[in-house]
Amino acid sequence: MTYLDHAATTPMLPAAVAAMSDALGRTGNASSLHSSGRRARREVEESRERIAESVGARPSEVVFTTGGTESDNLAVKGLYWARRAADPRRTRVLVSAVEHHAVIDAADWTAEHEGARVRLLEVDGAGRVSPEALRAALAEDPDANAVVSVMWANNEVGTVNPVRELAEVSHEFGVPFHTDAVQAVGILDVDFAASGADALTLTGHKLGGPYGAGVLLLGRDVECTPLLHGGGQERDVRSGTLDVPSLVGLAAAVAESVAAAPRRRVALAGLRDELVRAVLTEVPDAVVNGDALDAQVDGGPGRLPGNAHLSFPGCEGDSLLMLLDAQGIDCSTGSACTAGVAQPSHVLLAMGADESTARGSLRFSLGHTSTRDDVRALTEAIGSVVERARRAGRRAPAAVTG
Amino acid sequence: MTYLDHAATTPMLPAAVAAMSDALGRTGNASSLHSSGRRARREVEESRERIAESVGARPSEVVFTTGGTESDNLAVKGLYWARRAADPRRTRVLVSAVEHHAVIDAADWTAEHEGARVRLLEVDGAGRVSPEALRAALAEDPDANAVVSVMWANNEVGTVNPVRELAEVSHEFGVPFHTDAVQAVGILDVDFAASGADALTLTGHKLGGPYGAGVLLLGRDVECTPLLHGGGQERDVRSGTLDVPSLVGLAAAVAESVAAAPRRRVALAGLRDELVRAVLTEVPDAVVNGDALDAQVDGGPGRLPGNAHLSFPGCEGDSLLMLLDAQGIDCSTGSACTAGVAQPSHVLLAMGADESTARGSLRFSLGHTSTRDDVRALTEAIGSVVERARRAGRRAPAAVTG
Repeated sequence: MTYLDHAATTPMLPAAVAAMSDALGRTGNASSLHSSGRRARREVEESRERIAESVGARPSEVVFTTGGTESDNLAVKGLYWARRAADPRRTRVLVSAVEHHAVIDAADWTAEHEGARVRLLEVDGAGRVSPEALRAALAEDPDANAVVSVMWANNEVGTVNPVRELAEVSHEFGVPFHTDAVQAVGILDVDFAASGADALTLTGHKLGGPYGAGVLLLGRDVECTPLLHGGGQERDVRSGTLDVPSLVGLAAAVAESVAAAPRRRVALAGLRDELVRAVLTEVPDAVVNGDALDAQVDGGPGRLPGNAHLSFPGCEGDSLLMLLDAQGIDCSTGSACTAGVAQPSHVLLAMGADESTARGSLRFSLGHTSTRDDVRALTEAIGSVVERARRAGRRAPAAVTG
Repeated sequence: MTYLDHAATTPMLPAAVAAMSDALGRTGNASSLHSSGRRARREVEESRERIAESVGARPSEVVFTTGGTESDNLAVKGLYWARRAADPRRTRVLVSAVEHHAVIDAADWTAEHEGARVRLLEVDGAGRVSPEALRAALAEDPDANAVVSVMWANNEVGTVNPVRELAEVSHEFGVPFHTDAVQAVGILDVDFAASGADALTLTGHKLGGPYGAGVLLLGRDVECTPLLHGGGQERDVRSGTLDVPSLVGLAAAVAESVAAAPRRRVALAGLRDELVRAVLTEVPDAVVNGDALDAQVDGGPGRLPGNAHLSFPGCEGDSLLMLLDAQGIDCSTGSACTAGVAQPSHVLLAMGADESTARGSLRFSLGHTSTRDDVRALTEAIGSVVERARRAGRRAPAAVTG
């Protein structure tokens, strides 16, 4: 099988599997006071320190959650509630138009349900939010802004945002800044302190750790209203029994993936360039979406090294996906979370693509298990697959997608 | 080590560890359309069917969450929001005075933050809510009730509630009924359809499954506003990438623990009775809290078979716990989630205990790995431990707890 969908989920690193499997055999609630509980608590705190050190945060800034969706919801809703509680005028929620649905839908809910006003931030043709665009949006009603959320790197087209500058602009207006960095940690240099962000989302299963384990990095003085109430775990920001084995696995994966990131970036970019060149050779009219250049080591903009996103004129993405699947190649038309939804990608539309281009796109995402064999398998298949998808599209356009 | 804290968390069943460890090695986002994704989806749906069958629910009623705290919060807040949205007069949230903090604190938040009024339901001396007490509370303002939540079995003293009757009373008033059954599933007969409940919480790590994996059983026509927004997984009630390995482990644990429950109930009750007799022989003035009788197989009231809860006059529970810990015996003073909190148990106070009795109590909870050796170890230690705790209490009462 050729797995080209690492942005949806990537295989667990062997070290993470080993650490987690080992921990599954131990018992002890990390909130208990007896020796089994204290041992579990020690494992949790060691995991917290390990993660903090890997991403430039203090241990007390690591709030364990169950993953990206929870961290994003907690950040958007929690920061909104806390800011509005401190100043009832602050009801504006500013999020980029290309955020994951965990951010956009959380923001929409605050509007429908909690009196917020959502302001979608425009992106350029590569899918990037500029500091100027953010400043202009914040200035529209400077005393009414509650929270800003702009992702570190886009999950579909791989475009990296100028996070540090965006955080600075937010702070000019006294507004907390959250960034969904699930696609960035373990690939790019992500340093929480240096980024200036007030809150940052990371999740295990995008970087070689387990599902169901994530973090919201939350600055020590940043007020955040909890989503889940109960035992008061995690600074009272996130109640719930701590999932010790998963956190141990998460810490192992974060540490290893961050340490390996510098050389992995180079390897992935090389492989990705090969992939793009090969696809363009087979399908000369395919169009590469997103930023043309890779992200620089200093965290400046660019694109994720493992991401290739292409549009195939005259094709339906879903047909391409199924035809490739029949050849043993796994890829996606966009976010896994919206797979099967018969709508063109909101990311591509926000970037200015027309509907048919947006529908005729595929994301190939490489990761730690990717090899030249994967690229070769795709290269051998893509030409005939595109040809068949085009013929199908001409014959029965309405039957291909809903 | 002698582990007598299964109510806080119980060791994973070997079958659950095996199923989960195996799944950790497979990749595939259950929302992806390609073959890896479809395989992951199949594992999720098989797990869903297995759990549904074990607890008398339909597969479509199984909403996967990350555990008890999330399920409880989703039920209390989500049912409240949905009922209030349908009828703005409905702002009353009725929860028993002995609920876990995941229910009580969620209810309190709806009051502080979302315009609800919380009505705590009184319990009798065993910690039980009677159908009459619920009916009287609902009748105080019959058109204003939004949701009722009463736990199936109490986590501290093990008292089982008459869930079916309570659900019926709720329905007389047209109010959805939620029950936190995390202590009941895998021990008592829990049949969702027969119980009449509209929503039911269960969680993996209380029944031999993993942490971080739980379920909210939610009746098909029951409206529930989501807590987490995003990809629209789980009937749009709970977004977030599904944690396939944990769900596979959860299903294995639910199936095995439910199948083993009839004989485990008998074994645990026998062992628990031995434990209580032995402790009372060593410490004749100790007092057993909760219901005197075990729950019957038909789901009628009684107590959990593995639970022994005792008060030791003249002792501080925390001192007892630490002295037992020094002898290699793990137990607790109450809920693990409030361990270390210098307040007497709200459960015992609601049952009518005075503060000093409430402070001088221990919970011993047995589970699938418990043996007569555990009881013997406790029997040998408890007499001298109580004596030392009493001497310490007489010498320096203020120094023992905060």
